[in-house]
Amino acid sequence: MAIRTVVWGENVHDRENEVVRAIYPDGMHGCIAEALNADPAIAATTATLDQPEHGLDEARLAETDVLTWWGHKAHGAVSDAVVERVVERVWQGMGLIVLHSGHFSKVFTRLMGTPCSLTWREAGEKERVWVVNRNHPIAAGLGPSFVVEASEMYGEPFTIPEPMETVFISWYEGGEVFRSGVTFQRGGGRVFYFSPGHEVYPIYRNASVQQVLRNAVKWAANPAPAWRDIRQAPNVPVDKAPEPIAEKGPRLHKPGEAGYR
Amino acid sequence: MAIRTVVWGENVHDRENEVVRAIYPDGMHGCIAEALNADPAIAATTATLDQPEHGLDEARLAETDVLTWWGHKAHGAVSDAVVERVVERVWQGMGLIVLHSGHFSKVFTRLMGTPCSLTWREAGEKERVWVVNRNHPIAAGLGPSFVVEASEMYGEPFTIPEPMETVFISWYEGGEVFRSGVTFQRGGGRVFYFSPGHEVYPIYRNASVQQVLRNAVKWAANPAPAWRDIRQAPNVPVDKAPEPIAEKGPRLHKPGEAGYR
Amino acid sequence: MAIRTVVWGENVHDRENEVVRAIYPDGMHGCIAEALNADPAIAATTATLDQPEHGLDEARLAETDVLTWWGHKAHGAVSDAVVERVVERVWQGMGLIVLHSGHFSKVFTRLMGTPCSLTWREAGEKERVWVVNRNHPIAAGLGPSFVVEASEMYGEPFTIPEPMETVFISWYEGGEVFRSGVTFQRGGGRVFYFSPGHEVYPIYRNASVQQVLRNAVKWAANPAPAWRDIRQAPNVPVDKAPEPIAEKGPRLHKPGEAGYR
Amino acid sequence: MAIRTVVWGENVHDRENEVVRAIYPDGMHGCIAEALNADPAIAATTATLDQPEHGLDEARLAETDVLTWWGHKAHGAVSDAVVERVVERVWQGMGLIVLHSGHFSKVFTRLMGTPCSLTWREAGEKERVWVVNRNHPIAAGLGPSFVVEASEMYGEPFTIPEPMETVFISWYEGGEVFRSGVTFQRGGGRVFYFSPGHEVYPIYRNASVQQVLRNAVKWAANPAPAWRDIRQAPNVPVDKAPEPIAEKGPRLHKPGEAGYR
Repeated sequence: MAIRTVVWGENVHDRENEVVRAIYPDGMHGCIAEALNADPAIAATTATLDQPEHGLDEARLAETDVLTWWGHKAHGAVSDAVVERVVERVWQGMGLIVLHSGHFSKVFTRLMGTPCSLTWREAGEKERVWVVNRNHPIAAGLGPSFVVEASEMYGEPFTIPEPMETVFISWYEGGEVFRSGVTFQRGGGRVFYFSPGHEVYPIYRNASVQQVLRNAVKWAANPAPAWRDIRQAPNVPVDKAPEPIAEKGPRLHKPGEAGYR
Repeated sequence: MAIRTVVWGENVHDRENEVVRAIYPDGMHGCIAEALNADPAIAATTATLDQPEHGLDEARLAETDVLTWWGHKAHGAVSDAVVERVVERVWQGMGLIVLHSGHFSKVFTRLMGTPCSLTWREAGEKERVWVVNRNHPIAAGLGPSFVVEASEMYGEPFTIPEPMETVFISWYEGGEVFRSGVTFQRGGGRVFYFSPGHEVYPIYRNASVQQVLRNAVKWAANPAPAWRDIRQAPNVPVDKAPEPIAEKGPRLHKPGEAGYR
Repeated sequence: MAIRTVVWGENVHDRENEVVRAIYPDGMHGCIAEALNADPAIAATTATLDQPEHGLDEARLAETDVLTWWGHKAHGAVSDAVVERVVERVWQGMGLIVLHSGHFSKVFTRLMGTPCSLTWREAGEKERVWVVNRNHPIAAGLGPSFVVEASEMYGEPFTIPEPMETVFISWYEGGEVFRSGVTFQRGGGRVFYFSPGHEVYPIYRNASVQQVLRNAVKWAANPAPAWRDIRQAPNVPVDKAPEPIAEKGPRLHKPGEAGYR
Repeated sequence: MAIRTVVWGENVHDRENEVVRAIYPDGMHGCIAEALNADPAIAATTATLDQPEHGLDEARLAETDVLTWWGHKAHGAVSDAVVERVVERVWQGMGLIVLHSGHFSKVFTRLMGTPCSLTWREAGEKERVWVVNRNHPIAAGLGPSFVVEASEMYGEPFTIPEPMETVFISWYEGGEVFRSGVTFQRGGGRVFYFSPGHEVYPIYRNASVQQVLRNAVKWAANPAPAWRDIRQAPNVPVDKAPEPIAEKGPRLHKPGEAGYR
């Protein structure tokens, strides 16, 4: 079965800014979904901020294998309830791909536990994305590096936790560097952050960028059943202990009582 | 100068439960602070939930090198404003030591980005804490393992991110295992989680446990100046780029404008 | 195409020790290969120490996607040339699964860069293998834990580098714990170490253990083309630099000259 | 007590190449030792390839807290016995700082378990070293970045294991990037690799580089007693098991017998 992928887009600049509109007449989310659907192993649809529940209701998320996230101007407008729902689905095993300015999204910062800050410059400068591990599934089909001719600079320090894997590091014309492709595991879910993708440049039309997105969806998809009770802290009563034990000493909780949280 | 350490205690069961009161007449926080102050390199004071701002106002946190955190019944009663303040101080470089049931505290789950769930059993059973890396500073002075005679069982899966370092793994009489001592880096701050410490057993009077606490405070203390602007994402204007560049193409932001977040 | 898997066995105790012979009439490698071949996605064959080049000549390794390694008594008898060949194939992208006493094999210690020592006891005691991340591909189809009724105890400290992922941690009847399933990345290749598997107990006939082995082979297989030149350190001459630069200052090497190593 | 540091230098180009001789009349090792000794917390001496046992006999290593390693042309001339001795001392807890072309040294590749290859260019180009975590002890006293005016380019992919911490990433004038400062833990010892330091440029006279070296020595020093038996795999006999167990089933080894290796 194809990987059920939802491409989430803030869809604010896509509608309001004429430069963005000219580059992405169907929105960035439309362009990304089209790029993903070029691979028959992926079945991508879109969802946007302006939809009810931002297009991410419980039922739809339950049937989503991988979610991609692009937001910028309206991070604060994303409802906390939807953020918690997305975060919990990641913990249950849904893959998450966070794009560009999504570094400051509620979803990403919530999963990282760090500021996720960086330095930036909007000058249409050249970015060269270097592949650190060419055998990583996310780098499949790429050469040693690829170029984004006009990019927004994102510079270190990028205040994320040390990644599980550093897949890409970028060089910028103006003198900075950035860990532009990094992976994390959060509960049952895999997370990939990928920085290229500023809205006033046609970056999601770049063939290498599209290849990375398709690779990342396939890497992030987890066929395991959803880990639905991952937030639970189940009590294991004395008579259900793997090894026979006798209860000793005082205790706070009555048998069968739920723990505090 | 001694390491300025604040021992934070929820101080609910310490006051309300007579078993706990009998073991810890000065509260668990009082016992922990005393154990820390046995080392002249540490200057520990206490703070509790019932104090204004939970005893963790801006000025005090600014002068705190390491914070230890014990909470259980009243995680939900900790104000979100104080949680954000503590989290931000960790990012700035303050060390944090999270104890036992603090795995479900707002502070810890916020920094981890995962559920931090586990399994548990309150049967006063034996826990043997194995030292995984005996040369780690947090294991200084310990043998290959030490025993907590009566402990609450905490079992895997412990849904944390893969640690930076696994320092201790525990064996339980009832058949479970647990990563009982693990380290993380979050922004400029070091975080150590240590699981032994249930309130109805005198675990914080155990000499090995006290040794771990002192070691952990010294490990977590960071002499670097506070990274005060770690949450900022500074723009680097074109004329301040490290390498001379010419601006190209369109942009969203006017020169000097702040980014979105 | 099925994953081309070679099950390497030392095949010494398998032949010489009658207890082992009774449990594994076709050798442990025979039993493991059979368990792997129960999955049509895997095509497993065997190789043993006593064959020419230990059954691992250049041509065969070049057509191997995943290698499993079991050795114990005769680690020292494995030729250094074959060890280097195996290690290089891992770097190129071949998956490697190291089993039980293989922790002290030349291949594993060479890839880890650490002693890989541990404590041990041969008493047929119970081992309970806990799943740390139930959504990890290597844990597919398992419950929260499984039991090996009679096992050799392997205890911490297990002197490996901090793993990329901790998949399993074991509890032993005699009081020890062990990180019994851990993953690493080495160059282009994935490495999984799995400790259950002592030769005088029928552990490779355990259904959960067999499931882990099949899962691990699928996890370790990397469809990327072999990274053949991973050991090379290519010079990038000035006129091939990604950005135009002028040569400045003195240098050691003449244009086109190889670097030192 | 000051940190007993040995600065190891290959001392081949230092003597034979007149450019190098002019920059470093006392050898690179002399220059580095002088820079370290500017800090009263460090007591640095030197050792070179041409000395008996390369200046690293058993007794001297036993009294060394931190070793720095610079080699290039003569990696192959370093005796395997000395390499094993150094590696074992790292496992026991000695800190190791590997410099520049030391990426291909026997000592470093042995500890990493990977090729440690990279790309390179000798053109005296500009390198800008970015600080990824400004609160890391190795970055103490540095700004957001510092410049090495003339450097040898070292480029990704740098085929090391994923680091414990990424401290520095470098930008090069010619368009490449490199993880120029990375940490690892190997057994009881901390390892730091730092790439700036080509011999035909006066890089070890750069104030920021010298600051990094002093910081790194202090970070790598471990006050724990040497873990002398880290290579041993001790048997824990049945009657010494932490929990009482009865022996069951067959076994390979007689009581008290050493394991195979």
